[in-house]
Amino acid sequence: MSLKTASEYLESLRKLNLNLYLFGERVGNWVDNPIIRPSINAMAMTYKLAHEPKNEALATTESMLTGKKVNRFSSLFKSTDDMVSKIKLQRELGQRTACCFQRCVGMDGINATFSTTYEIDQKYGTEYHHRFREWLECIQENDLCVAGAMTDVKGHRGVPPSQQVDPDMFVHVVERRDDGIVIRGGKANITGTVNSHEMLLMPTLRMREEDKDYALCCAIPTDAEGITHIYGRQSCDTRKLEPGDIDVGNYNFGGQETLTILDNVFVPWDRVFMCGEYDFSIMLVERFAAYHRQSYGGCKPGIADVVIGAAASMADYNGVRKAPHIREKLGEMIHLAETIYACGLACAHQGWKTKAGNYQAHILLANVCKHNVTRFPYEITRLAEDIAGGILVTTPSEKDFRHPVIGKYVDKYLRGDPNVSTEDRYRMLTLIHAMCFGTVAPSYHTESMHGAGSPQAQKIMIERETDMDLKQRLARSIAGIDKREEVLA
Amino acid sequence: MSLKTASEYLESLRKLNLNLYLFGERVGNWVDNPIIRPSINAMAMTYKLAHEPKNEALATTESMLTGKKVNRFSSLFKSTDDMVSKIKLQRELGQRTACCFQRCVGMDGINATFSTTYEIDQKYGTEYHHRFREWLECIQENDLCVAGAMTDVKGHRGVPPSQQVDPDMFVHVVERRDDGIVIRGGKANITGTVNSHEMLLMPTLRMREEDKDYALCCAIPTDAEGITHIYGRQSCDTRKLEPGDIDVGNYNFGGQETLTILDNVFVPWDRVFMCGEYDFSIMLVERFAAYHRQSYGGCKPGIADVVIGAAASMADYNGVRKAPHIREKLGEMIHLAETIYACGLACAHQGWKTKAGNYQAHILLANVCKHNVTRFPYEITRLAEDIAGGILVTTPSEKDFRHPVIGKYVDKYLRGDPNVSTEDRYRMLTLIHAMCFGTVAPSYHTESMHGAGSPQAQKIMIERETDMDLKQRLARSIAGIDKREEVLA
Amino acid sequence: MSLKTASEYLESLRKLNLNLYLFGERVGNWVDNPIIRPSINAMAMTYKLAHEPKNEALATTESMLTGKKVNRFSSLFKSTDDMVSKIKLQRELGQRTACCFQRCVGMDGINATFSTTYEIDQKYGTEYHHRFREWLECIQENDLCVAGAMTDVKGHRGVPPSQQVDPDMFVHVVERRDDGIVIRGGKANITGTVNSHEMLLMPTLRMREEDKDYALCCAIPTDAEGITHIYGRQSCDTRKLEPGDIDVGNYNFGGQETLTILDNVFVPWDRVFMCGEYDFSIMLVERFAAYHRQSYGGCKPGIADVVIGAAASMADYNGVRKAPHIREKLGEMIHLAETIYACGLACAHQGWKTKAGNYQAHILLANVCKHNVTRFPYEITRLAEDIAGGILVTTPSEKDFRHPVIGKYVDKYLRGDPNVSTEDRYRMLTLIHAMCFGTVAPSYHTESMHGAGSPQAQKIMIERETDMDLKQRLARSIAGIDKREEVLA
Amino acid sequence: MSLKTASEYLESLRKLNLNLYLFGERVGNWVDNPIIRPSINAMAMTYKLAHEPKNEALATTESMLTGKKVNRFSSLFKSTDDMVSKIKLQRELGQRTACCFQRCVGMDGINATFSTTYEIDQKYGTEYHHRFREWLECIQENDLCVAGAMTDVKGHRGVPPSQQVDPDMFVHVVERRDDGIVIRGGKANITGTVNSHEMLLMPTLRMREEDKDYALCCAIPTDAEGITHIYGRQSCDTRKLEPGDIDVGNYNFGGQETLTILDNVFVPWDRVFMCGEYDFSIMLVERFAAYHRQSYGGCKPGIADVVIGAAASMADYNGVRKAPHIREKLGEMIHLAETIYACGLACAHQGWKTKAGNYQAHILLANVCKHNVTRFPYEITRLAEDIAGGILVTTPSEKDFRHPVIGKYVDKYLRGDPNVSTEDRYRMLTLIHAMCFGTVAPSYHTESMHGAGSPQAQKIMIERETDMDLKQRLARSIAGIDKREEVLA
Repeated sequence: MSLKTASEYLESLRKLNLNLYLFGERVGNWVDNPIIRPSINAMAMTYKLAHEPKNEALATTESMLTGKKVNRFSSLFKSTDDMVSKIKLQRELGQRTACCFQRCVGMDGINATFSTTYEIDQKYGTEYHHRFREWLECIQENDLCVAGAMTDVKGHRGVPPSQQVDPDMFVHVVERRDDGIVIRGGKANITGTVNSHEMLLMPTLRMREEDKDYALCCAIPTDAEGITHIYGRQSCDTRKLEPGDIDVGNYNFGGQETLTILDNVFVPWDRVFMCGEYDFSIMLVERFAAYHRQSYGGCKPGIADVVIGAAASMADYNGVRKAPHIREKLGEMIHLAETIYACGLACAHQGWKTKAGNYQAHILLANVCKHNVTRFPYEITRLAEDIAGGILVTTPSEKDFRHPVIGKYVDKYLRGDPNVSTEDRYRMLTLIHAMCFGTVAPSYHTESMHGAGSPQAQKIMIERETDMDLKQRLARSIAGIDKREEVLA
Repeated sequence: MSLKTASEYLESLRKLNLNLYLFGERVGNWVDNPIIRPSINAMAMTYKLAHEPKNEALATTESMLTGKKVNRFSSLFKSTDDMVSKIKLQRELGQRTACCFQRCVGMDGINATFSTTYEIDQKYGTEYHHRFREWLECIQENDLCVAGAMTDVKGHRGVPPSQQVDPDMFVHVVERRDDGIVIRGGKANITGTVNSHEMLLMPTLRMREEDKDYALCCAIPTDAEGITHIYGRQSCDTRKLEPGDIDVGNYNFGGQETLTILDNVFVPWDRVFMCGEYDFSIMLVERFAAYHRQSYGGCKPGIADVVIGAAASMADYNGVRKAPHIREKLGEMIHLAETIYACGLACAHQGWKTKAGNYQAHILLANVCKHNVTRFPYEITRLAEDIAGGILVTTPSEKDFRHPVIGKYVDKYLRGDPNVSTEDRYRMLTLIHAMCFGTVAPSYHTESMHGAGSPQAQKIMIERETDMDLKQRLARSIAGIDKREEVLA
Repeated sequence: MSLKTASEYLESLRKLNLNLYLFGERVGNWVDNPIIRPSINAMAMTYKLAHEPKNEALATTESMLTGKKVNRFSSLFKSTDDMVSKIKLQRELGQRTACCFQRCVGMDGINATFSTTYEIDQKYGTEYHHRFREWLECIQENDLCVAGAMTDVKGHRGVPPSQQVDPDMFVHVVERRDDGIVIRGGKANITGTVNSHEMLLMPTLRMREEDKDYALCCAIPTDAEGITHIYGRQSCDTRKLEPGDIDVGNYNFGGQETLTILDNVFVPWDRVFMCGEYDFSIMLVERFAAYHRQSYGGCKPGIADVVIGAAASMADYNGVRKAPHIREKLGEMIHLAETIYACGLACAHQGWKTKAGNYQAHILLANVCKHNVTRFPYEITRLAEDIAGGILVTTPSEKDFRHPVIGKYVDKYLRGDPNVSTEDRYRMLTLIHAMCFGTVAPSYHTESMHGAGSPQAQKIMIERETDMDLKQRLARSIAGIDKREEVLA
Repeated sequence: MSLKTASEYLESLRKLNLNLYLFGERVGNWVDNPIIRPSINAMAMTYKLAHEPKNEALATTESMLTGKKVNRFSSLFKSTDDMVSKIKLQRELGQRTACCFQRCVGMDGINATFSTTYEIDQKYGTEYHHRFREWLECIQENDLCVAGAMTDVKGHRGVPPSQQVDPDMFVHVVERRDDGIVIRGGKANITGTVNSHEMLLMPTLRMREEDKDYALCCAIPTDAEGITHIYGRQSCDTRKLEPGDIDVGNYNFGGQETLTILDNVFVPWDRVFMCGEYDFSIMLVERFAAYHRQSYGGCKPGIADVVIGAAASMADYNGVRKAPHIREKLGEMIHLAETIYACGLACAHQGWKTKAGNYQAHILLANVCKHNVTRFPYEITRLAEDIAGGILVTTPSEKDFRHPVIGKYVDKYLRGDPNVSTEDRYRMLTLIHAMCFGTVAPSYHTESMHGAGSPQAQKIMIERETDMDLKQRLARSIAGIDKREEVLA
């Protein structure tokens, strides 16, 4: 079977029988639901690019399993170059959608699970890796979307899974049967569930022996029995229901997250990739996290490109594009975006080959990459707000703009540079609004903060991955506490 | 007449006949419109506090004109202490409303106009000051709300008023009659128009002789003939229309801005306070700006108190309140908020008496105050997002939470610390959401950036108000370029 | 006795018999020692200003004890205005010396001890306060300098005084006699000891019962028997010994710190102000810290004025003063300096009257003030380095500049704007060098960091002084967790 | 001829006949001069590593010209991997010397000149490239050090070379002869001149036709007739003359810069690589700048490793290594250092092949790399000062520490954790002091700011290298101003 087109992808979604709630109602035709559709469009772009001659080399690659051409989002990284292409693909998609396009979690989860299952099997003689390859071949063959699902709802953050008052705060095995397992629990903030065919469940933190039932990795269809998806609210979500295409800011595209409840979901053994090997939970988490923290080095600079372009355009429309302070601010925005990108590239280039044969992003640098992502996008939008002006949050509605009586006032008085139409200026303002406050702000702000792990998680990894002994030895040698180096020796 | 209660204020609004548009429709009963009402509630709090024994000393003062007790928001500052009380009142109101309460622009405009008109009269023998006192006495006597209206729509930002292609980009006199003047133009981002009785129009920048017709200051009723108010959209505004009280985050209170069009509005001479004295335009602008840049030193720390309290509560509800990195972040948020407050206090305490007898905030320090406001609130909400967690932007809707079937899932799986109800946690999340993204984010972010002037405006004032010659002399003396000081002399 | 002149002060120092070591040698005539003299000059300026008509109102005040005119540095604060004058005096002195002038610690210690002894006496019926007044009257009468000495050497930072392996890591009582006490220990980083007549010893942290012997406050002459002062090295200190006056950067003035060892020093009872009342140790520490954290709100902006003036002058000399990026950077430096100043003023204005009758700086705001000081001076000098150019750290020596053969090369090639002499440019460079790296960098950098307590100490106080319950109540009310406020009630 | 050992390098220097001044005196045996020697030691490390089996692959490579093994510092980059190895070599050397090791400017200049001469020849039919290869082969064959010399003294910064009042403010051709050219002018801030055999002179900015004589690139021996080197002062330089090895902080190593005067220096034609082709000046500058801005992505993280190790050690010695705020600060220092490193790696990996065949660092990312270097090292040392404590700038001298009488006091009272010797703690303090204030602070601060171009230079390049049109097109498409993308097309 060949690579799906965007349309084929869309049609394939219609065949799913999702149990999905939105605003307190079960959604039947969710593919055409205006709240949800932009997130499907964003995902569809990952299919579209695979057919663009210009982007084919980024968007597709040769399968490490079969040698066939597959979408990069369901591929294993065969080299550091593959990870570099991933970053460049993500930047392209960030530029084209100006939001989260949601297919990275699956890609990153696939690669982490591939190498971790190999090492579990080595130690325990299990057959997880083989099962995983089979499953992945099927994903690749059918060009399916996989939603990586790591974050558990977590309950009391200071208490490990098995000590929680409610045992379901982390997804866990409730029954082991001959043909498979039954699992229960809640996953929160899950990106790209209701536009994916499959979910890859992963544990969310280090486990100890008593948490054994929580050391769980498996794949399930997004419409498996026992699953309920509850669609998360986003800022300004209902603007998608309004007539007109301006106020929403980014009309075509948007992100999507769900609270996904697994209430006694059955998983056959051939879809189970870790089940009780608690000592491997942290390996899976850290490898996934490194891949995914790298991912932000691609997508967020892509989104930043749109924010920067929008801010520069607003400066044009206001007639101040050449003012030194405007140029300084635009330059700063670019500098911050490219710093993130550089970190994303660096941890790709400096990756290493796992025992299973695929490549892993450099863990320290991937964490550094993501940690910058928890800071710089906020400064970038702050500067965009600065350039846009206060009108950013006081624009009349599109209905006012189209109104037979007062529309002429809006048109007359919201004009900046008289050579630019008011509508263009208005559209650019609402786009910036969407990035700073509206439907795509969660993608660019909170997801930058918490996606792939919160800032403190990176700080911990940065500390762990640093060879502080080496640094202290260097200092002691220079200081003459340890023997100083003989220069002429 | 005595000080209005909040209810009396509300009733007094009903008597106005505003020409107001919202979402493309003329609004009849705007006082009870759910989109608009929170902004009226916020303003009403300025009336309520005047009757609270605990806050009476902050919220009221003795009129400099009549000696009677008046609401501080329509008072003249008789001392630096009055300006300090203003800051403390603003902090109290920021804490109680968690948003912009909109009555400061008028207060600050009143004080700037009072002293500027005095100096115009001194130079030109005009009678603006007398007229202004009469008008202000009436405002005080009737305890009316005044919306200060300075920002013009401005068109091409690089072009002065009289050179704009469309002459109406700044409000200006189009006809001088025996009984008054006729004015035209648009004012943007105007805060608190449709919950005020009066507007005080002020020019927005330095004028030159050719801009004479734009050098205009006057008062008009908000429902004067020829005025059209177009209500600005705010992030998540339509959540106010939804059933339930949670998703909107701040149910009671909110800000409000309008695009206000003046299409040949007549203003009788006794309401005209500057008309053509272009050389005084910048004095009025700078004095107003200093007062208003100071104001942010009161209200924004008040709003910050709520953000900080909400973030601390979320940490409680998640069970991580004592984690060192959480304490560090809360400490940083407090530090930033109090730095702003300190600047607001300092420019009040260091104020000076104008020729007209009221007190002026210290111009350099007021600009420094506001410039910090263009930065720190963004960092404060960034840290609040960090503490809140990714769930901030993925919460199900209140309808899901109340749903007979899936409500139990939401309740079960969104719980943090089991000793806290899910609803409490959910409410706190939506409050933080409102501050970071939603209905009050414009008050706390963009208004912090652009209200009372954009960052570059402060930079220019900081440069202008600094005695750089002194600093260079000091440096030359220490360096021995100029004669060094004789220590023992 | 009247206020000493700077010369009289200098002569009075000669009468002291200090046991002082510098570079491994006991220093006899330390008053004329070129390494030490600049610090004496800086202190002398506090005497000089008291005789300047222009600064008399800042530099002197009426004694709260005797009603006589005294130097402000040995006065008690009779009002918040006194504390405001203190800040302004400190800024003036910072501007005039471009370094630490070292007399503030004593002033701040005097005020903290005054109010704390009063409260100790109230509780314990002791007579410390009376003794302290007697001693202070004598200080004022003779216009003496007092070095505040708080910081103990501290040993292992994780261990309280009484648990240290070496009991002398904090100064403590080793013998109680009828006529007084004998004390031992080491005080580190002590500012202004060897240009002061007296030292006021204070404890450095909260004490518990077992630390009783360490809960000690007393006054001793700087040349008391048993004291050894060891002069601390400063960056580029030996440039003061070189011929010429350029390379040192700030030729006249400098700071000074000592490691001061108290090896069985006898203190008569009338100089003992706390001895065992461990529960009051933290009160003395926190009050002193608040005063002293405030002090940095005055002196550091004064030093900043010189740095800013020097950077602006370098830009002039390089011919780039009007470049937008230079103006932006100078504006930022001013903004940061004035933010610190505003905080210093605010905590003075918002001070409160102690039970003893003198005024205390606002503790929360004083900590906020100092915390900004641990950050902004670093950014100010970073920007100064940016403006100065790389030549800052590669200038030839003054000897090269004066050299008969190569002097002409230096003169020719180090010239910037041809209208400015190379010598002027060279002098300005060395001044900036001194602020960033040289003899006054410790005053402007490390002292900003650690003086009056390290950043973490402020964070702890900020947390402690904040009413977090109030903030959480506010958030709960707005969120509707607690009952929402009735606006119209 | 084989690769020199460090000793052979040292001996080779002795054969040079430098005209060198230091502190107003001509220096004869400069190789053994204690002020200068540390900079020679640092350079010698680049020779030493070439003989270390562990580092051979980093420190040497195959010559692109001859295929022979050469020191990487005189090599051409044959691939992006070569540039990555360069970065890793620089980090290793930064770790081992804790300062600038001074051989990078030459390496970066060689590569920029190689590709630029090729393109000049292509356009003008000149033979610069051939000459340059010949010269470089000789450098490689003899394993010589080359000091890159770009920065002119520049005079009035607002005036181009040919318009300066003094024509020698930029190095230029004063005479064209049959056998070569005569040049004159001054080069400032030149790194590694007096420990190099050769200098490679390059122009410092874009030239126009009238600046033709300034469009000059050539090689000269460092001891050519007509050259005068004047050794720049560094903070605490004379500590190198003091007995003992502690106070200087970094005893073995240090940086070095000179003001180098070229007073009618003759250059034979075979050493002239650009002479009048003013339109290629900017190409040479920008390519060099990109290489050199990349270089800071290697060396500065290496120096940071020592700073971080020293700070962690101080925390150990003070007994507070596990305090959360200390760990947070160390983590932040690491994060900043690794961000720089990531940028250095990224611009190496993303390099491209020039027409001449060697590889060029990615220009945008190299500028981003360096721009971070103008910020982060300052924050890293600020945090190191925070961790070190105030004692950093108040330590007694080594002479005090060794003193028969007071030495015991110093030993007793400067001890932190009793399990660590005072000497170790003292040594670590002086090392941190050297990095923050002393002999290596210029390497880590000002050079980070101005080396390879000042911050504004990077901002200009970042603006120039950004495809802002693309960004604006992206924004217009998302906003619907341009046609929106058809997702399903």
